[in-house]
Amino acid sequence: MPEQDQFEHGGNIYKMKLNTGRESIMDFSANINPMGLSKAVRKAIIDNVDDIIHYPDVSMNELKNKLSEIYDISVQQIIIGNGAVELIYILCHVLMPQNVLITAPTFSEYERASRSVGAKITYCTLAEEDNFELSLQKIIIAMKNKDLLFLCNPNNPTGTLIAAEDLTLIIEHAEANGCFVVIDESFMDFIANSGDFSAKPLLKNNHNLFVLHSLTKFFALPGLRLGFAVCADNEVIKRMYLNKDPWNVNCLAQKAGLAALEDEKYRRRSRNYTRSEINYLYEELLHMDKLKVYKPTVNYILINIKKTGIKSKQFKLKMLDKGIAVRDCANYPGLSGDFIRIAVRTREENDKLLDAMEDVLK
Amino acid sequence: MPEQDQFEHGGNIYKMKLNTGRESIMDFSANINPMGLSKAVRKAIIDNVDDIIHYPDVSMNELKNKLSEIYDISVQQIIIGNGAVELIYILCHVLMPQNVLITAPTFSEYERASRSVGAKITYCTLAEEDNFELSLQKIIIAMKNKDLLFLCNPNNPTGTLIAAEDLTLIIEHAEANGCFVVIDESFMDFIANSGDFSAKPLLKNNHNLFVLHSLTKFFALPGLRLGFAVCADNEVIKRMYLNKDPWNVNCLAQKAGLAALEDEKYRRRSRNYTRSEINYLYEELLHMDKLKVYKPTVNYILINIKKTGIKSKQFKLKMLDKGIAVRDCANYPGLSGDFIRIAVRTREENDKLLDAMEDVLK
Repeated sequence: MPEQDQFEHGGNIYKMKLNTGRESIMDFSANINPMGLSKAVRKAIIDNVDDIIHYPDVSMNELKNKLSEIYDISVQQIIIGNGAVELIYILCHVLMPQNVLITAPTFSEYERASRSVGAKITYCTLAEEDNFELSLQKIIIAMKNKDLLFLCNPNNPTGTLIAAEDLTLIIEHAEANGCFVVIDESFMDFIANSGDFSAKPLLKNNHNLFVLHSLTKFFALPGLRLGFAVCADNEVIKRMYLNKDPWNVNCLAQKAGLAALEDEKYRRRSRNYTRSEINYLYEELLHMDKLKVYKPTVNYILINIKKTGIKSKQFKLKMLDKGIAVRDCANYPGLSGDFIRIAVRTREENDKLLDAMEDVLK
Repeated sequence: MPEQDQFEHGGNIYKMKLNTGRESIMDFSANINPMGLSKAVRKAIIDNVDDIIHYPDVSMNELKNKLSEIYDISVQQIIIGNGAVELIYILCHVLMPQNVLITAPTFSEYERASRSVGAKITYCTLAEEDNFELSLQKIIIAMKNKDLLFLCNPNNPTGTLIAAEDLTLIIEHAEANGCFVVIDESFMDFIANSGDFSAKPLLKNNHNLFVLHSLTKFFALPGLRLGFAVCADNEVIKRMYLNKDPWNVNCLAQKAGLAALEDEKYRRRSRNYTRSEINYLYEELLHMDKLKVYKPTVNYILINIKKTGIKSKQFKLKMLDKGIAVRDCANYPGLSGDFIRIAVRTREENDKLLDAMEDVLK
């Protein structure tokens, strides 16, 4: 069953290899930590391979306790997923929303999961002229008669951030209007001062809040699947447990997650490394004529290539000819065929990307 | 969120270790292939660890093609799951059944998944006096006004098998009466003449049929999660794809599955080994006074211990004191507190189990 183009994501190296006939592709289309797998995570997986003859730990207590410690959240409010995206689907199955509000552009799985339960989708368009910043006024007006709101913070693919005080207003307004709010913080680990942006502290006061957090991007293990969510509404958490199979998180992902969260040096250095490299990439891109480069906040950059006269789909193909994958953003609602997104990689690879882009734009 | 006792399974070594304070437990409570991980599978996982920095292949074409070849099924009719149990939940979310018919006793996730979508459950009780054989007449009568039927073949925990010709009658009657049928063949790989029992060939004629197949028991990788289903109803398969996240099967499970299916020697020897050891175990158990031992068909044996005067819960605890886990079957609807289930393990371990049981029954 081929995935529809409408919801196709970056990072599909299997398809890219097949289409190009190439053995290897430099993938800037998926937003994965350029430091790669932590040595401790790699070791944890290999050391525990023989454990897969047993069922995974259904309690996941070890991992939950570590998440609780690292993110200052309550163990009872945590649910762990086979990737954060699994939890979006389970949440939709539990809430069965009828009217869902989604910003545009944003990560497309919110829409796909909402549609899977028959919900009607309304977009709150982030304006290009505002650099895709969220308008507090617009979102509050758009929230009328909606039962579920998805916000990605920082937003994928724009990189825009919503400050915690704005989030507070949004969530409180939503609660007063019977709207459940999902805040996806899957890129929050890349931010040093994440305390200024994270909605997790708001869980203490807001029962209509569900904070989603992927561990695959920051810890570079998307192939293993791991994510979690925190929600103060016990009933929602309980129903989610009843709506998923008990063994959803494989045992290597549990061990890898634990090792990853314990690797403090990797976490600190990843933030530092990514910040330094993304700034380098950003500054270099600013020097390229005809590009409008949006200021990055985490590990990826949105670029408007309209003035180059090349459409994003063509641009992607030209780059792929050089063995480099960028994300064509044409299938994001709210973005035309003039946008690409690139993730940061190592210095050497970033330089190759820049050279290839200069070549394409010559 | 603790799993309710009602739906607790065997094989929870984490909980058993915690409760007993033991470093290791000989686990006869989970029905896993006693040969353990195939060397080829172990190698495939370790060789591909570094691939987890990429998203899993959403098409899963390589694995689907191999499944198609091994099980003689159509690639277009396959959906692969993060374990077979994930697919039960997704199917329930797609079908939203109102009246579900389940045999009793059987694997409890059919009931749990059906309840998660609000379905009413009716049990078709398998009679102890018939050695828990399915009565064709009873199941056909019970099917009236049901929209979904689950059958486990061979059945867990009784080991009873339904012949293909009986299945044909059941499925055809179900189709004529608007009832969708799930046949769970998760233990079918252990059977040499599986062609006499498998419902997969019936997919050519029956659109209301969904054949489920776990790969975790026979290939001893429950911790990694892998299973698949085949269904001739395109609409059901399509909606299941739309109701799950695209990356549900982690990349190590995909690689492990491929290596497992290609390991013909392991597959043949596993059947041979299990058959030989289960017969040994069965014959020895028959010599123990006061046990009623049901004839096994695959890799586990159901035992009625009523005449011993020990309840199954007590029996389990007494065995656990000796570092051996057996499955207390008291939480299976249709079984009283007088049944235990044991899986077959290696000869050395099986002898230890027999010695420990003799000791408990002294």
